[in-house]
Amino acid sequence: MTLPPGAMIGILGGGQLGRMLAAAAARLGFEAHIFDPATDAPAGATARWHTAAAYDDKAALSAFAEACDVVTYEFENIPVAALDCIEAFALIRPGRQALATSGDRLTEKTFLTDLELKTAPFAPVEDMASLTKAVEAIGYPARLKTRTLGYDGKGQATIDGPGELKDALAQLQDAPAILEGHIAFTREISVIAARSVDGSVACYDPGENVHRGGILHNTTVPARIRPALRTDAVLLAARILEALDYVGVLGVELFVTPDGLLVNEIAPRVHNSGHWTQLGCAIDQFEQHIRAITGLPLGPGTRHSDVTMENLIGDDITRLPDLAAENTQIHLYGKAEPRPGRKMGHINRLV
Amino acid sequence: MTLPPGAMIGILGGGQLGRMLAAAAARLGFEAHIFDPATDAPAGATARWHTAAAYDDKAALSAFAEACDVVTYEFENIPVAALDCIEAFALIRPGRQALATSGDRLTEKTFLTDLELKTAPFAPVEDMASLTKAVEAIGYPARLKTRTLGYDGKGQATIDGPGELKDALAQLQDAPAILEGHIAFTREISVIAARSVDGSVACYDPGENVHRGGILHNTTVPARIRPALRTDAVLLAARILEALDYVGVLGVELFVTPDGLLVNEIAPRVHNSGHWTQLGCAIDQFEQHIRAITGLPLGPGTRHSDVTMENLIGDDITRLPDLAAENTQIHLYGKAEPRPGRKMGHINRLV
Repeated sequence: MTLPPGAMIGILGGGQLGRMLAAAAARLGFEAHIFDPATDAPAGATARWHTAAAYDDKAALSAFAEACDVVTYEFENIPVAALDCIEAFALIRPGRQALATSGDRLTEKTFLTDLELKTAPFAPVEDMASLTKAVEAIGYPARLKTRTLGYDGKGQATIDGPGELKDALAQLQDAPAILEGHIAFTREISVIAARSVDGSVACYDPGENVHRGGILHNTTVPARIRPALRTDAVLLAARILEALDYVGVLGVELFVTPDGLLVNEIAPRVHNSGHWTQLGCAIDQFEQHIRAITGLPLGPGTRHSDVTMENLIGDDITRLPDLAAENTQIHLYGKAEPRPGRKMGHINRLV
Repeated sequence: MTLPPGAMIGILGGGQLGRMLAAAAARLGFEAHIFDPATDAPAGATARWHTAAAYDDKAALSAFAEACDVVTYEFENIPVAALDCIEAFALIRPGRQALATSGDRLTEKTFLTDLELKTAPFAPVEDMASLTKAVEAIGYPARLKTRTLGYDGKGQATIDGPGELKDALAQLQDAPAILEGHIAFTREISVIAARSVDGSVACYDPGENVHRGGILHNTTVPARIRPALRTDAVLLAARILEALDYVGVLGVELFVTPDGLLVNEIAPRVHNSGHWTQLGCAIDQFEQHIRAITGLPLGPGTRHSDVTMENLIGDDITRLPDLAAENTQIHLYGKAEPRPGRKMGHINRLV
């Protein structure tokens, strides 16, 4: 069933992704309602409705959900109690299976290997005994990560040898963790894919990602990979979407290795590495996501232009007048403070 | 001087143009404040701030202007008293000369002919005596139009012979009017052009317009005209911008005739016939306008793709699911009632 124009789309999280989702909802004639504790949340500028309340405020969550025809989200670590509260009143899309799977690195990796997709070698870590056992199986260097939370390189520690086990474990403050083996990859790419209510799937061409300091710096499309790998990437994304009975846009980060593609992680939402679609496609990832969750037909994911997306991080934003002097599409997020490592905006440029 | 991120842009008028201007302001990291009497104005969905008050509410206008760093508008018939009120607190861009010129068809035509640009033959009409004199000079068929207000074919009457003078005059209810001669044009095109604070000019390629029932139905870019005419159109738009010391985006509607280009009318704002830029250019007309009025450098107006824009008028909106099934970029305006003749949205399609 397709939601009619004017239907209310709830968005959990009012950061830049929520901001651009709300703008896309408006383009499609829907109303958007942001739920975010911050009164000055970036997404408040592009939505008519904003509930500024905590994610454990059940009364606020219920009232929000009751006002919405469908609820989506811009981040994956939503408290389970909040989801229960919302689900009593409104449909959650993408569904909770996707959240449960991607919200825990161990569950996610297990899900992926169950699908016979390749990942880095991994093992669960709860304490020194399991960590010792894990490094014996996986070897050095390896990366210890918290199972939940953590993004942009936070909640992670690299282990280069036996002397570093204790420190790494201490750094994670006893949080349940996962050890991942090092992957000698040649490139990082990602696929942004969408699945509609009726099960049809549309993928954008893979983009090639460059990270700096654990944060995505730029994405260029097309990725410099063989056509066969491009097909592999798209098929693999489709397999993930089907296994999760997914509705919406999903981001899949992949490593290109001599042995083929390895899945790094999946994100059950629009993804930073899909921002290039705003300039490269008639229907960008934000519109695609809104189409999917409202029951509208998906766009085909066709690219009309090759694009480089570059994040503006921290002080990068001071380059704005120079960037504007080029043929550059600018997207700023309306954040007041340009703190180091903070994503302030991005630009899209034809290549 | 360039306005800093977070600066407040006031927008008079909360219709679809205000809605898309506000969305562009957000993309560039600015805040938008809509002034529109309707509490459910379309632009309210894409701006954080909205003053719902009448255009003669001086207290509301003053408070609005005081909160803004620059004020722009989406329509040209703004009461002079409202502009006076705003100007006491904030810069108005584009400036008042453009509003005064384009807000009155007689002033506009006189301005254009003073610039040695061609227009349809015209003459002022106040009463039967001046109307009779005007048709003697201009001939039949001719079109009687109110000097101010009127859009999408409203406030106009066609006169095919002497027997129709009285009815035409009565239809305009004694409003000051202008008689315009009939133009045998082969095509209607328009140029969307922008001028920045420092006087630099950027134009988009002319689009070819098709009207139905006095309302724009579609625009296709490029227009099917000779390269020399394309240059003429762009130079002519630049001449208008300079003569008005203009800052912002301007729409110029032109008739293509065997004798060259005639100016039909100018609009001191983003223009329906420029919506194709949302799909065809890295920097669309809405972002271009916000760049101009905030002192950012203009985009070059380069087109990466050929596009057809089609308006969705009245019941056209019921075609939405079918349209979404194509590779079509959808823009709906969030209007509740699909009344006949009402612009409900538009689509952009690659050609």
